[in-house]
Amino acid sequence: MRRLGMKRSEKAGLPPGTVVHVGRERTAKPTVSVISYDGEHLEERVLDTAEACLVFKGRPGVTWLNISGVHDTKLLEELGACYGIHPLVIEDIGNTEQRPKLEDYRDYLFIVLKMLYHDEEGQVVTEQLSLVVGPNFVISFHEQEKDVLEPVRTRLRNSQARIRGQGADYLAYSLMDAVVDHYFVILEHLGVDIEEVEESLVASPSTSELAAIHRLKRELIFLRKSVWPLREVISALERRESPLIKEGTAVYLRDVYDHTIQVIDAVESYRDIVSGMLDTYLSSISNRLNEVMKVLTIIATIFIPLTFLVGLYGMNFRFMPELGWRWGYPAVLTVMVVAAAGMVAYFRRRRWL
Amino acid sequence: MRRLGMKRSEKAGLPPGTVVHVGRERTAKPTVSVISYDGEHLEERVLDTAEACLVFKGRPGVTWLNISGVHDTKLLEELGACYGIHPLVIEDIGNTEQRPKLEDYRDYLFIVLKMLYHDEEGQVVTEQLSLVVGPNFVISFHEQEKDVLEPVRTRLRNSQARIRGQGADYLAYSLMDAVVDHYFVILEHLGVDIEEVEESLVASPSTSELAAIHRLKRELIFLRKSVWPLREVISALERRESPLIKEGTAVYLRDVYDHTIQVIDAVESYRDIVSGMLDTYLSSISNRLNEVMKVLTIIATIFIPLTFLVGLYGMNFRFMPELGWRWGYPAVLTVMVVAAAGMVAYFRRRRWL
Amino acid sequence: MRRLGMKRSEKAGLPPGTVVHVGRERTAKPTVSVISYDGEHLEERVLDTAEACLVFKGRPGVTWLNISGVHDTKLLEELGACYGIHPLVIEDIGNTEQRPKLEDYRDYLFIVLKMLYHDEEGQVVTEQLSLVVGPNFVISFHEQEKDVLEPVRTRLRNSQARIRGQGADYLAYSLMDAVVDHYFVILEHLGVDIEEVEESLVASPSTSELAAIHRLKRELIFLRKSVWPLREVISALERRESPLIKEGTAVYLRDVYDHTIQVIDAVESYRDIVSGMLDTYLSSISNRLNEVMKVLTIIATIFIPLTFLVGLYGMNFRFMPELGWRWGYPAVLTVMVVAAAGMVAYFRRRRWL
Amino acid sequence: MRRLGMKRSEKAGLPPGTVVHVGRERTAKPTVSVISYDGEHLEERVLDTAEACLVFKGRPGVTWLNISGVHDTKLLEELGACYGIHPLVIEDIGNTEQRPKLEDYRDYLFIVLKMLYHDEEGQVVTEQLSLVVGPNFVISFHEQEKDVLEPVRTRLRNSQARIRGQGADYLAYSLMDAVVDHYFVILEHLGVDIEEVEESLVASPSTSELAAIHRLKRELIFLRKSVWPLREVISALERRESPLIKEGTAVYLRDVYDHTIQVIDAVESYRDIVSGMLDTYLSSISNRLNEVMKVLTIIATIFIPLTFLVGLYGMNFRFMPELGWRWGYPAVLTVMVVAAAGMVAYFRRRRWL
Amino acid sequence: MRRLGMKRSEKAGLPPGTVVHVGRERTAKPTVSVISYDGEHLEERVLDTAEACLVFKGRPGVTWLNISGVHDTKLLEELGACYGIHPLVIEDIGNTEQRPKLEDYRDYLFIVLKMLYHDEEGQVVTEQLSLVVGPNFVISFHEQEKDVLEPVRTRLRNSQARIRGQGADYLAYSLMDAVVDHYFVILEHLGVDIEEVEESLVASPSTSELAAIHRLKRELIFLRKSVWPLREVISALERRESPLIKEGTAVYLRDVYDHTIQVIDAVESYRDIVSGMLDTYLSSISNRLNEVMKVLTIIATIFIPLTFLVGLYGMNFRFMPELGWRWGYPAVLTVMVVAAAGMVAYFRRRRWL
Repeated sequence: MRRLGMKRSEKAGLPPGTVVHVGRERTAKPTVSVISYDGEHLEERVLDTAEACLVFKGRPGVTWLNISGVHDTKLLEELGACYGIHPLVIEDIGNTEQRPKLEDYRDYLFIVLKMLYHDEEGQVVTEQLSLVVGPNFVISFHEQEKDVLEPVRTRLRNSQARIRGQGADYLAYSLMDAVVDHYFVILEHLGVDIEEVEESLVASPSTSELAAIHRLKRELIFLRKSVWPLREVISALERRESPLIKEGTAVYLRDVYDHTIQVIDAVESYRDIVSGMLDTYLSSISNRLNEVMKVLTIIATIFIPLTFLVGLYGMNFRFMPELGWRWGYPAVLTVMVVAAAGMVAYFRRRRWL
Repeated sequence: MRRLGMKRSEKAGLPPGTVVHVGRERTAKPTVSVISYDGEHLEERVLDTAEACLVFKGRPGVTWLNISGVHDTKLLEELGACYGIHPLVIEDIGNTEQRPKLEDYRDYLFIVLKMLYHDEEGQVVTEQLSLVVGPNFVISFHEQEKDVLEPVRTRLRNSQARIRGQGADYLAYSLMDAVVDHYFVILEHLGVDIEEVEESLVASPSTSELAAIHRLKRELIFLRKSVWPLREVISALERRESPLIKEGTAVYLRDVYDHTIQVIDAVESYRDIVSGMLDTYLSSISNRLNEVMKVLTIIATIFIPLTFLVGLYGMNFRFMPELGWRWGYPAVLTVMVVAAAGMVAYFRRRRWL
Repeated sequence: MRRLGMKRSEKAGLPPGTVVHVGRERTAKPTVSVISYDGEHLEERVLDTAEACLVFKGRPGVTWLNISGVHDTKLLEELGACYGIHPLVIEDIGNTEQRPKLEDYRDYLFIVLKMLYHDEEGQVVTEQLSLVVGPNFVISFHEQEKDVLEPVRTRLRNSQARIRGQGADYLAYSLMDAVVDHYFVILEHLGVDIEEVEESLVASPSTSELAAIHRLKRELIFLRKSVWPLREVISALERRESPLIKEGTAVYLRDVYDHTIQVIDAVESYRDIVSGMLDTYLSSISNRLNEVMKVLTIIATIFIPLTFLVGLYGMNFRFMPELGWRWGYPAVLTVMVVAAAGMVAYFRRRRWL
Repeated sequence: MRRLGMKRSEKAGLPPGTVVHVGRERTAKPTVSVISYDGEHLEERVLDTAEACLVFKGRPGVTWLNISGVHDTKLLEELGACYGIHPLVIEDIGNTEQRPKLEDYRDYLFIVLKMLYHDEEGQVVTEQLSLVVGPNFVISFHEQEKDVLEPVRTRLRNSQARIRGQGADYLAYSLMDAVVDHYFVILEHLGVDIEEVEESLVASPSTSELAAIHRLKRELIFLRKSVWPLREVISALERRESPLIKEGTAVYLRDVYDHTIQVIDAVESYRDIVSGMLDTYLSSISNRLNEVMKVLTIIATIFIPLTFLVGLYGMNFRFMPELGWRWGYPAVLTVMVVAAAGMVAYFRRRRWL
Repeated sequence: MRRLGMKRSEKAGLPPGTVVHVGRERTAKPTVSVISYDGEHLEERVLDTAEACLVFKGRPGVTWLNISGVHDTKLLEELGACYGIHPLVIEDIGNTEQRPKLEDYRDYLFIVLKMLYHDEEGQVVTEQLSLVVGPNFVISFHEQEKDVLEPVRTRLRNSQARIRGQGADYLAYSLMDAVVDHYFVILEHLGVDIEEVEESLVASPSTSELAAIHRLKRELIFLRKSVWPLREVISALERRESPLIKEGTAVYLRDVYDHTIQVIDAVESYRDIVSGMLDTYLSSISNRLNEVMKVLTIIATIFIPLTFLVGLYGMNFRFMPELGWRWGYPAVLTVMVVAAAGMVAYFRRRRWL
C-alpha cells in the first residue's frame, strides 16, 4: 500500500493537464516497441524513445505502439503532442491510480484497465494499462517491462491468425481479452489460498488465520474494484456508435463482457465464502473457550468439595469424635469416592463428558 | 470444487474461438442422438459422431439433436462448422463454467442453462446445458449421458401431445421448463436438509452443525447463481422480437418465468432461515457457556469459604482457645451449614438454581 | 411447513397445462356458490359442482362464482374448458404455491393473492385466492370453506351499497380490499406477540425467547413475501389499459395500493424491531455471564489468599516461631480481616460491588 | 405504541369510503378556524363546526380552513360533501395511520404529512396533517389543538409578508415548510440524546444504555418513515403539471425538498452512529469480562500453587525429614516468595498487569 | 459537533428567504477580494464590504469576487440584491449546513461544495463553499479567511496559464477542481491514521483503539456525505445544456468527475477496511480471554487435585496407616509428580501448551 513515488495528494493544486507521474517510483528507462502489420506483412521494432513519434503516420495496416514505463513524463508529453492526444489523457496515463474507464475523444478512444499478474515472489502486482485506440493504431502504456500481453504478440506473429486480418479495434479487444483472461489466473490462486485457509481454520484456528482472512478480503476488494468498472467500460464499447469499433468486433466484445461477469461472479462468491470463514473462526474460538471452561469446571467441581472435606478432618479441635473412630478414614474415603462418582454421573447426564 | 480437467486459467492467452474443454475431465465417448418429428411422424436415432452433421437439413418438422459430452472439442468444432455456428458459441459450449445467458445470432439463439440433479450418491451434480435454437431445430449440449430431459422425450413420443404440433421454440421452452422443474426437486431436498440441521441444532449444537450450516449456505449461493441470471434469460426470451420465438410460446415462457421467480423466492427464504440458524448456533454456544459457568460458580462460591473456615481451624497455633472448646466442632459445623444454606438461598433469589 | 399433499417437486416433468393439486391434502368436497346481482336484483345459490358451468352466460349484471377447494382437478379442468380459461391458468389455480401475480389474457385478468387469517387455534393460515376477472363475472378459487370475503357478501346483500351499482372490476377490487384489510388483523396480532416477547426478554431471557424471535422473524418473512408482489400486482392494475378495469375503479385501487404500502411499512418496522430484539437477547446473555463471573471472582479473590494464609499456619514444621506466640492467632485473624476489607474496597472502587 | 382508540384492524371489512377515526382516542370538540386574506385584507375567525361549510365560496383571495380534531367523523363527512371531496380522501383524513403521500384529484390536491413536535413532558408527539389544496383555498386537518403552524399564522398577519401576495399553493408550501422546519428541532433533541447516551456509554455501560440505544433506534426508524415518503411527495409537487401549483412556487418547493434531504441525511448519519454505539456497548461488556477474568486468573494463579505447597507441609506423615529441618520453614517461605514473584513477572511480560 | 452559533433548529418557522447565519459563530469581519482578468490584464483588489456591489458590471473578461465570511447576513443580502440573486440562494449561502448541490437559475448557476482542509492543529475543518456562476463572473463564498483556492490564484497571476484565456465556467471548474484535489490530501492523512490504528491493534488492542476506529468511521461517513452528492453535481454540470457551461469545459468537468469517483472508491475501501478492523478488535479480545482462561485452567487443573491430595494426608484421623509408612511421603510425592506430568501431557495433546 505504501507508495515510494509521488503521492496523488502532492498533485493537489496543479493545473489540469500537468503530467505528473503518480505511483510507485520507477527508474528503468522506458522502452518503446512497435509492431506494424497487415494481412501479409509484420514489422517489429524497438524504438529509441526519441523517434517514437509519428512512426505509423501514413502506414497501411495497423500499428501497435507499446510504451513500458509511464514515469518519464517528458516522453508522455512528446507523444501526446505528436499524436494530438488531449493533455488530460496524457495526465491520466501518467497517474497510475485511475480506475478503469472509457473516454471517447472522437478521433480516438481512451481506455484504462488494471493489469494483474504475479511477480517472481508470487505477489499480485497491479499495473495500469492505458490504451489509446485510433482508426489504424493502438498505443498502449503500462508501468513495467513485464506484461500479460505476450499471447497477443505471439498470435500477431502468426500470419494465419484471425487477428492479422482485422483492424485496430480488434487489436484493442485482444489486449483487453488478454488482461481479463489473466484475471482467471489470479482468481484461481485466490481460490487455492481460500481452500488452504479454510483447511487450517478447521484444523486449528489461530490469529494467523484471522490475518489471512483479512488479507483475502482485501485482495477481493481490490480485484472487485478492478473488474466492476471494467464491466461498464466493455459494455459501453459494445454498444457504442463510435465508428472506431466495427460491427464484427462487437460479438467479441460481448465475449469479454461475459468473462468479466464471470470474474465478478467468482469474486462475489469468494467474498461470501470468506465472510463465512470469519463466522467459523469466531465460533470456533467460542467453542474452544467452552471446551476449556468445561475442563476447568469439571476438575474444580469434583475436587473443591473433596478438598473441603479433607480440610474438615484436618481441623485441630480437641473434641472431634470422628477422628478417633476406627473406620473414620475409610468412611471418609468412601464418601469422597461416591461424591466424585456422583459428579461424574451428573456431568455425563449433562453431556459434558 | 476441485476440478480434474483443464482449468479456466489455463485458457488464458488463447485466441478467441479456440475450443477448449474447461470442466471436470470426462473420458466417455460423446453420444449424439436425434429426434425428428412433426404432428404425424417421429423418428429417433442414435448417430455416430461422424454422421452428426447435417441430419436435419431440408427435413420437414422439428429436429432435436442432443449431444452428451462436450469434452470432444473436435466434434464440437465439426458441428459448429457444419451448422454455421459462430466459433465463440462453440467455445462457450466447451467451457462449462458459463453463467446462464442468452445470445441472439439472428439465425439462431444461443442459450446457456445450469442443469441440477442428484447423482446416485445423492450429491447435487451441476451440468451446463447449452441450447442452439434455430427455425426448425434445437441442438442441445450437456456434459454427461444422464440428464433431466427424459420427460420431454416421453412427451414427444406421444403423438397426441401438444408439443408434437409445435415448433422448435416450443421444444426449447420444454427443455428449459424441464430444467427449471428439476430445481424444485433440489429445493425440496435442501428444505429437508435444513429442517434436519435445525432439529439437531436444537437438540445439541456442535461443530458439525456449523459445518452443515456453511454447506447449506454454499449450496444456496450456488443455486442462486444458477437461477438469478436464468430469470433474465427467460424474461428476455419472452419479450424478444426474434422471429424464432412465436407468439403462442410467449405465454408458456411467462409460466417458466414464474417458476424461476418461485425458485428465487424459495432460495431467498432459505438463505434467511440459514442465517438465522447461525445466530441460533452462536447463541446456544453462549448459553451453554453460561450454564457451565453457573455450575462452576455455584460450587466454588459455596465451598471456597467453607474450605477457608476448615483451614482456619487446621492452623497449628498453640494459643487457639476455640480448639479446646467442647462445642467448638459442632459450632463450626453449624456455621458452615448456615453459610452454605445462605449461599443457596442467594442463588435461588438470583434465579441461578 | 410440512405438506401432506402432493409436493411441487413431484410435478417436475409433467407437460405444461397439466392440472395437479399442489398443496395441503384436502378431502372435503369443493363447494361452488354463485351470487348474481345488479342494481335491483340479487340471486344467491349454492351449485352442484356439475352444474357450475355456464351459469352466467348471457345474464345481465355481475356474476360472482366462488369455488372453495382447488384439489378437485377435474372440476377445475371442466370450469376451464367451459369458460375458455387458458390451461396454464387452470394449472396455476391448482398449484397453491404461486406468488401473487397478475396476468392479462385479454378476455379476462388472472390475479393470484395470498389470503391470511387465524384458524380456530389461533394459528395463521394462508390460502391462495385466485381471481379470474372477466367483463361481467368474477370467478374466485380458494382452498377451504372458510375465507375472509364475508364482508363483501354482506355488502352485496345490501341493495343500497355502492358495490351493487358497479361492475365486475369493482367486485374484484372489493375482494382484494377484503384480503388486504385482513392483513392488518394479522399485523396487529404480530404486534402484540412482539410486545410480549419483548417484555419477557427484559424480564428473563431464555432459549424460548430466542425460539419466539425466530418464529416472529419467519412469520414476517412470510408476510413480506405475500405483500411485496401484491404491491406490484395492484400497481399494475391501477395503471393498466385493460378495458376490463374502468376508470372509476382506479381511485379505489390506489386506495388498496396505499394499504399494501402501509402493510409493507409495518412489516419492515417489525423486522427492524425483531432484529433489535436479537441484539438485546445476545447482550443480555453476555451481561448475565458477566454478573456470574463477577460473583465468582469476588468470592475467589477474597478467600483464596486467606485460605493460603490459614494453610501456611497449618504446616507441621517443627521450627515455626509464630505458632508459639501468644498473639499469633489474633494477629493472623486481624491480617485476614484487613486483607478481606482491602479486597472489598478494591472491588468497590472498580464498581464491581 | 398502544393506541386507545379504534384500531386499524377493526376497520377490516368495512366498505371503502366509510369514514372511521383510527388513532388515539380524542374527546375534545374539534375546532374550526378560518383565515381569509389577500394582499390588503385579512379576516380571522373561529367557526362553529356547523357553519364550517362553504365559508370561502366566492370569496376573493385565499382561504385557509384549519380543522383541529379528526375524530368527529360526522364533521369530516359534512365537510367532504360540502366541498366535493372524494369519500376516500375523507376516509384517509380520519385514519391517522397514513404514510405521507400526494394524490391529485384534478380540482384539488390531497397531501398527507406527519407533524412532529415535543409535548409538555418532552415526549415526541406525532400528528397527521392532511391538506386539501384547491385553487383558492387550503383545508388542513390535524389531530389536536396544538400544532407547529403558528409561524405561518404570524406571517399571514403581517400585511407586508410575501405570503400575503401569493396564492393557495404558496400557503400549502408554507405549511409544509413549517412542518419540515420542525423536524430539525426534533433532530437536534435526538442529537443531544445521542451524545448523552454516548457519554454514559463510555463512563459505565449498563443495561439502561442498551435500552436507550434501542429507543433511539426506534425513534430514528420512525422519523425516517415520516421523511422518506415526504421527499417523494415534495419532489412530485415540484415537477407536477397540476395547474394548482404555480411556477413561482416551484423554487420554494425545491427549497423544502432540500430540507427534507438534509433531514434524511442527518437521520442516516444518526443511524450509523447509533449502530456503532451498539458495537461499543457489546465490546465494552466483553472488555469488562476480560478485566474481571484477569483479576481472577492472577489471584488464582499466584495463590493456588502456594496453597498446594503449604498443604504439602501440612501433611501428617511421620517420616517427612523437611519438617524437622531448622531452616525448613524459612526455605519454604523463600520458595513461595520467589514463585509469587515469578508469576508476577510472567504476568508483567504478558501485559496483564 | 457542537456548534456555537445559531442552530439550524432555531431557524424553524422563519419565512423563506430570511437570511440567517447557521454554523459556527464567527466574529472576524468578512473580507471581499476581487480578481478581474482577461488574456492580457489582471487586476487584484481587496474591497471594502460597502463597495462590493457591482464591481464587474460592464467589465470585459472574467471577474471573481471572493467573500470570506458568511456570518454578515447584511452583506449577503446587499450582494444578493445588487446582483439579482434569488433570496433563497442567499439564504442557502448563509446556512452552512447545506449538502453539495447544483441549482440552475437561468442567469446563473448556484453550486454548493464542501471544502475540507487541516487546520493548524491538524484537525479536519470543513467549510461550505458556495459558488454563483454567471456568464462573466464567479462569486464564491466561504466561511473563513483560509481556503484551498490559493493554487487557482497563483495560476491566474501567470499570464501564460490556460485559465487566463477561458471564461467564468472554466474558473468555476478550477475552483471545484482545487476543492476535490484537496480531498486527496485528507484521504492520505486518513490512510496513514488507518495504518497506525491497524498496527497498534495488532500490537495490543485496547479501548483506545476502539475509540479510534469509531472516529475513523465517522470521518469516513462525513467525507462520504461531502463527496457523494458532489458526484451528482458535477455529473449534472457535465451534461447540462445551460449555455453558461461551454462545450470545451465539459472535458475538464469529466476529469473532476473522475476524481470524485476515485475519492468515493477510496472512501468505500477505507470503510471496508475499518469495519474489518472492528472484527479484528472483537476477535482479538475473545482471543485474549481464551488465553487468560487457558492459563487459569491449566494452573487450576494441575494444582486443585494435588491440593486435595495433600489435604487428604493432612487429616487428623488416628487410624491412617499410610501416615506411618516409611515410604508414604515419597510415594505421595511421586504420585503427585506423575499426576502433574499426566495433566501436562493431556494439555499438550489438546494443544493448550
